[in-house]
Amino acid sequence: MNKTVYQKRLELIWDRMAQEEITLTMFEDAEGKRDSTIRWLSGHPSDALLFLSADRKSLLVPWDINLAKAYARADILIPYNQFKRDPKIAIGTTLDFLDIPHGAKIEIPAVTPYPVFLDFIEEFSDYDIICRKECTASYARDLRITKDADEIALLRKAADITNIIIDLIEKKVRCGKIKTEADAAMLIELEARKQGCEGTSFETLAAGQDRSFCIHAFPSWTNAAFGGQGLSILDFGLRYRGYCTDITLTFARDASPAQLKMVGLVEKAAKTALEQLVNGNDISLAASAVDNLFKKSKKNMDHGLGHGIGLDVHEYPFIRSTHSGKWILAPGMAFSVEHGLYDPVHGGRSFVN
Amino acid sequence: MNKTVYQKRLELIWDRMAQEEITLTMFEDAEGKRDSTIRWLSGHPSDALLFLSADRKSLLVPWDINLAKAYARADILIPYNQFKRDPKIAIGTTLDFLDIPHGAKIEIPAVTPYPVFLDFIEEFSDYDIICRKECTASYARDLRITKDADEIALLRKAADITNIIIDLIEKKVRCGKIKTEADAAMLIELEARKQGCEGTSFETLAAGQDRSFCIHAFPSWTNAAFGGQGLSILDFGLRYRGYCTDITLTFARDASPAQLKMVGLVEKAAKTALEQLVNGNDISLAASAVDNLFKKSKKNMDHGLGHGIGLDVHEYPFIRSTHSGKWILAPGMAFSVEHGLYDPVHGGRSFVN
Repeated sequence: MNKTVYQKRLELIWDRMAQEEITLTMFEDAEGKRDSTIRWLSGHPSDALLFLSADRKSLLVPWDINLAKAYARADILIPYNQFKRDPKIAIGTTLDFLDIPHGAKIEIPAVTPYPVFLDFIEEFSDYDIICRKECTASYARDLRITKDADEIALLRKAADITNIIIDLIEKKVRCGKIKTEADAAMLIELEARKQGCEGTSFETLAAGQDRSFCIHAFPSWTNAAFGGQGLSILDFGLRYRGYCTDITLTFARDASPAQLKMVGLVEKAAKTALEQLVNGNDISLAASAVDNLFKKSKKNMDHGLGHGIGLDVHEYPFIRSTHSGKWILAPGMAFSVEHGLYDPVHGGRSFVN
Repeated sequence: MNKTVYQKRLELIWDRMAQEEITLTMFEDAEGKRDSTIRWLSGHPSDALLFLSADRKSLLVPWDINLAKAYARADILIPYNQFKRDPKIAIGTTLDFLDIPHGAKIEIPAVTPYPVFLDFIEEFSDYDIICRKECTASYARDLRITKDADEIALLRKAADITNIIIDLIEKKVRCGKIKTEADAAMLIELEARKQGCEGTSFETLAAGQDRSFCIHAFPSWTNAAFGGQGLSILDFGLRYRGYCTDITLTFARDASPAQLKMVGLVEKAAKTALEQLVNGNDISLAASAVDNLFKKSKKNMDHGLGHGIGLDVHEYPFIRSTHSGKWILAPGMAFSVEHGLYDPVHGGRSFVN
């Protein structure tokens, strides 16, 4: 990404900060509290703090300074180690370094744990520390729902590669060259890199005919048989320059009548969902329609219908019947549609995103 | 694990709840807020809520009921979907279901975000909702520092398998059968399953001689050359019945004098660390000793010296010079020691855990 792409996004954030009269905003990307918005705003792909100030400066505090020098764009770079990897020391030093006046509004992310928030307001009692559900980090996550042209191009490329791999897998399952879960998982790993991906967007879930009863296979894949008589599930995704895909495939071979009925119902659900997914529609309608369809057959899908994809493999919007009134389908949105049924006896998920 | 193992652990938690006069405690394991304590207490390996009540009942709310039926032990199982996958509905229903009296102390995990905590105290204003740094979930995490006999056995098995794979990799790098990062990563994936592991404990990080300048390789591995002239890093771990290993290997071939000097210094750091790691010693001493050693050579390690391993690949204790006075080395502790140096020119990490 060139600098203007990040700059355009940063300006949106700074505009919002001005509106809300926030002097300094902190983003955090760390184990247990991942936030890809830092990558979206700076290109830095991994653990870091990012501070944005009202005078439109960006200060990145990466865990790995060598990585940041190779990937990140920010006005100021300071290695986290210089702050003893302590967010309190990082915030304190940044306040001094950027000359933030006492009393200023300093925003920390909505995910900040309550006990940590108490620590911060005690430590920085000279400042107005705020932690709200509708924080700047949430605002960024909302902005990210509508992909810009650069993102759409990367998602298309990621999807093209995913489709190549799907075709390859189908061919190899049909002719018996993929015989085990491991065969399928390894093909994805190797082919992804060959095609220029950073890797998979989550741990590949391959469940052969004997253990396809779960939503997410556990363990994720084994040496068990795959693609044999019955239903096998393959749930995987790729990451291309940060952008994720997420796809589920069901392989039915010599399926029983009960299994074919499940597959048929899930195929019908695909049609039902797509009918509802038109611009201007509340996206929860698709989820309700699928839930209702399954209910009519006394079946139940124990998860939402889909979720946004982008720099995160799970991001806004969530497509669930319980999220009515939250998101209207509009150009630039990218999301998965993954209706499925799971049965402890007959096995699993019976169709495709 | 048989039932008595979980029961013994649960009793420790219930004893603590009695001491603290807590009527209901909630644990949560979900994307963005993983808590392996649920697996430690119930065997359930994945997303769920776990409620423990003062009258010593356990109620598990798994995201995937089929998975729970196969793996989990709890007095009561209720699928999360029944609560519309909403923690507030789950808590509310549980309060009724377990006949928790108004005014009772209900504990939520310390990681609960401040805005969510506000929501909860509003929603459950008839109860005393508490969210403290020293919560029951933190107490469990502290208990997990000292592994019991069952855990030690699993960790030993995980380590034995890891050692087998290390030997295999060394042999294949030496004779040129592992030529690329992909070769190394794929060998680990396949061999782990062959040996009965659930998989890797984190995404394998393989950085060949041309890109070993980072602490964590990015992308995690590619088709680039590995094990050739210079320094290559391989950082990987396995998971055996939940229990993790974490190891870093540096491969030096025809290394330059500057590279050999780095390797020598990191080998010296290993000796320095091990000298300090004796029962009864503050474990931060090992980290300080290594930091000081590097400082004398004007080098710097941009991360801590090590971390606990168990059901999480990163858990307490953390071995950092800044954590003085926190943990005393005692029998039953399991942790990594991973001193390293990284250089944008000469490449990376120069020794082994």
